[in-house]
Amino acid sequence: MKLLAIDTSNQIMSVALTNDDGIVTERTVNIKRNHSIQLMPAISDMMKEAEWAPKDISRIVVAKGPGSYTGVRIGVTVAKTLAFSLDSELVGVSSLEVLAANGAQIDGSYCVPIFDARRGNIYTGLYQYQNGKLIQIENDTHISAEKWASYLKKLDGPVQLLGSDRSKHNEAFKGLSEKEIQLPLSRQYIRASVLAERGENREPVNKHLFEPEYLKLAEAEQNWIAEHPDLPQGGQWVEKL
Amino acid sequence: MKLLAIDTSNQIMSVALTNDDGIVTERTVNIKRNHSIQLMPAISDMMKEAEWAPKDISRIVVAKGPGSYTGVRIGVTVAKTLAFSLDSELVGVSSLEVLAANGAQIDGSYCVPIFDARRGNIYTGLYQYQNGKLIQIENDTHISAEKWASYLKKLDGPVQLLGSDRSKHNEAFKGLSEKEIQLPLSRQYIRASVLAERGENREPVNKHLFEPEYLKLAEAEQNWIAEHPDLPQGGQWVEKL
Repeated sequence: MKLLAIDTSNQIMSVALTNDDGIVTERTVNIKRNHSIQLMPAISDMMKEAEWAPKDISRIVVAKGPGSYTGVRIGVTVAKTLAFSLDSELVGVSSLEVLAANGAQIDGSYCVPIFDARRGNIYTGLYQYQNGKLIQIENDTHISAEKWASYLKKLDGPVQLLGSDRSKHNEAFKGLSEKEIQLPLSRQYIRASVLAERGENREPVNKHLFEPEYLKLAEAEQNWIAEHPDLPQGGQWVEKL
Repeated sequence: MKLLAIDTSNQIMSVALTNDDGIVTERTVNIKRNHSIQLMPAISDMMKEAEWAPKDISRIVVAKGPGSYTGVRIGVTVAKTLAFSLDSELVGVSSLEVLAANGAQIDGSYCVPIFDARRGNIYTGLYQYQNGKLIQIENDTHISAEKWASYLKKLDGPVQLLGSDRSKHNEAFKGLSEKEIQLPLSRQYIRASVLAERGENREPVNKHLFEPEYLKLAEAEQNWIAEHPDLPQGGQWVEKL
């Protein structure tokens, strides 16, 4: 199966073309720049490199968030548009899961992906290796780094904290040092080939209904709700007004 | 430190630009095509992407073999030429070590990288995780897969076989299955960012004297020696004749 995988949910953009033998071509770029400018040219370039025609792609796997609102929207919108126009399957995978899968395959150890969510908060989740497989233990969540650190401290087993954003919360996580397994920097970055692997055997989603998972309202939405406590909760503000 | 890492020692070409925070940009291409055509355009493209000037590069890390003779020569020649013309440091790292470093960081487990060397033979080596660090246990070697499998069988500890070439020798390694830790496909491919990490703290080599490590004479050289048993062993045939 020829597969295109896209992750633009954070500062890193990673794109991969894979087939049943694994990576055909993969690019990972960690430069502060607009994914909306970089993403399509990268895909197009890589398709040429691999000598794939657009119609060859039978499945698109996209990191569906959480992460940067703009980043997540760019990835998901490009993936939905391509899946619709190429008539290929679409699969969404948690961006946190993709990072967690960079952890070392140590049975019983927890893989804890971390994206900074500002103001001492993080997006995170709890995954564990069991019999060589990465299993999700807790739902992905938006939580204060302090709270999450004290939760992790009570876990029975070594912990791998993943993600380059972890360094922004070193203070919160320093109490974990005894049970922590440190991984090299090259494991701290999401890889679209790992995303491809996580998504290659899942049930495809409905391309039209598929939505990102932000895990948290955008600031503008939060402010709106605070200023309009009398209005019913939930999205679709334009329709409601 | 701004670093350029190049691995073209096998079918896969991987190039990375890294700095002290890790990956800036990385490309990994697994397509049967001449590295001599792909390598320089990729480097040039990635330099533009990162907005690096050539003189920014203070160190070049290259995979020095073993692998395909042509592939190793292309990588090493480009690295030496660039290091000389840009006046940057040069470091060589075993191609097998780069692959071994893709293994899972499980203390006591052995990481065994495998490149096919045709006719039932492989290039391989023995590495082990000790206190979170990957240590070389045996020198890289050229050996029959059968012999290597029976050596590995006697080791005390789980074994991780790495590399997409392993599938060409499944028959030889099937006896290992009980002690083997299976890793996903995305871990079976060399990554230039891992190469960069392995080479970032080593002593630089002499750029002019640096040579690839083939671990085995090319077929033409072997035939020459067989046909000229009276001549002294060793290279520099042109000078000797």
